[in-house]
Amino acid sequence: MAEIIKGAEVKANLIEQMKKKMEETGVTPQLAIVRVGANDSDLAYERGVKKTCESIGISLNVVELPEDISQADFEARFKEVNDDPANHGILLFRPLPPTLDDKPVIAMIDPDKDMDCMCPYNWAKLAMGDNSGYFPCTAEAVMQILQFANVKISGAKAVVIGRSQVIGKPVGLMLLSKSATLTWCHSRTRDLAEACKDAEILVSACGVAGIVDKKIAEGVAEGCVAIDVGMNFVDGKMCGDMAFDEVEPYMGKITPVPGGVGAVTNTIMCSHVVRAAVKAKTGEVFNF
Amino acid sequence: MAEIIKGAEVKANLIEQMKKKMEETGVTPQLAIVRVGANDSDLAYERGVKKTCESIGISLNVVELPEDISQADFEARFKEVNDDPANHGILLFRPLPPTLDDKPVIAMIDPDKDMDCMCPYNWAKLAMGDNSGYFPCTAEAVMQILQFANVKISGAKAVVIGRSQVIGKPVGLMLLSKSATLTWCHSRTRDLAEACKDAEILVSACGVAGIVDKKIAEGVAEGCVAIDVGMNFVDGKMCGDMAFDEVEPYMGKITPVPGGVGAVTNTIMCSHVVRAAVKAKTGEVFNF
Repeated sequence: MAEIIKGAEVKANLIEQMKKKMEETGVTPQLAIVRVGANDSDLAYERGVKKTCESIGISLNVVELPEDISQADFEARFKEVNDDPANHGILLFRPLPPTLDDKPVIAMIDPDKDMDCMCPYNWAKLAMGDNSGYFPCTAEAVMQILQFANVKISGAKAVVIGRSQVIGKPVGLMLLSKSATLTWCHSRTRDLAEACKDAEILVSACGVAGIVDKKIAEGVAEGCVAIDVGMNFVDGKMCGDMAFDEVEPYMGKITPVPGGVGAVTNTIMCSHVVRAAVKAKTGEVFNF
Repeated sequence: MAEIIKGAEVKANLIEQMKKKMEETGVTPQLAIVRVGANDSDLAYERGVKKTCESIGISLNVVELPEDISQADFEARFKEVNDDPANHGILLFRPLPPTLDDKPVIAMIDPDKDMDCMCPYNWAKLAMGDNSGYFPCTAEAVMQILQFANVKISGAKAVVIGRSQVIGKPVGLMLLSKSATLTWCHSRTRDLAEACKDAEILVSACGVAGIVDKKIAEGVAEGCVAIDVGMNFVDGKMCGDMAFDEVEPYMGKITPVPGGVGAVTNTIMCSHVVRAAVKAKTGEVFNF
């Protein structure tokens, strides 16, 4: 039977490290959320972030802008938020309403305040293996989980299913920079089970419920660590990319859905704010 | 017996396309080379670029700066080159002398003039799969060779050996963006032969003479296309990463060293200048 890696434990561990760092450095990090309008999914994410921020002691500065704001006003307001040294990090909810263009603010944002890897400077750091950047939060959540679970990445055969900009691409690059032997699969991969054979780390992030099934699970290496990034809904019930009951017996460790990666993501975002605040105060560049 | 893919043929084909594009659009591309001092390896590369430029009709503007130039003067001269609309592209020879820092000019260079992927904007485009960027020339040479040889990349099992910033990393990202199922190996990979098994495209770019040997070659898929990016010297003789005589019988197609990838690289750089000149004149963004 696989050990279940609980997102809540990873989260609690990370929060403890963050609090310690804040105490050591005496920073009070502040996150600015820029939200245009008030759609349900933005509000739900905001509530999650707010709760996490409160539990850590990060100040939250929610800048709500009217849905019918002009492009010029939107840019002007964003510039104020960006220029204000009290804001250590910025989270802009996207997609924006169709009347607004996010390119000017992506070009404008201080890379050191770009908490969710919007701007090219953070993408370049990711591609160049420079860990001082702020990378997409869900992808970093996967890496944080592997670190928490003491998984040896260097030299391990890692398989990533999916190559989206938000998860698959960054998680592959991060695994490569940690010296995994990486196999990258996606919708064009002809034989997924063959590609996953002997995997010691298996990350699925393609958003296809149950794509990792018994057939694939049978072929992985003994003790394989399975990280399920999928968030799919089948018959109204949330499930991952892995058919959990079929897959779990073949794995050494596995994350559930819900309660796995999803439980860590907004804490990663908060950890970026702490890193940014410490860098702004002391110049120290570090990772949790 | 494998078909030998000759770099000279790939080069000639690309030059023909470039000339056609220049004729169609009426551009006269100009490349500025910024060279500090006059070391042998820079001069050798410059001679190669000059010859290729002349054969195509690209103007060359060599800006030679004294080896003892101050940082401030270096930046000022670079700014002039960068600001001059007559220069469609810039190639800065690096590494610079130890007295100079390249960071300020990397931050300054117009991404549309950055012919050799120095600046983060082009790295970000690479990571984001945006083909409007100018990517590292040797890595693009590999892709150009695959295109010339009509190799189907989508869905193919591609193996890249090496993850350097200059070649391994970008070539892997480009293969992924063309929908290869990608396996990335490097010095920490425990079983290289196992990782290369069933490869349909095999790119070696790790700089270890003969690392791809009979044992590895025996395991690849029938008709495998082998691209050898290695440039090693053994007993004063140039050779690639592949033990050519051992490996060739198992491959469908293979590039030799010398006369393979190396013969294409500076032509790719020139093709960037043509792309930049066309973009500056007509706004058209395209790839060869």
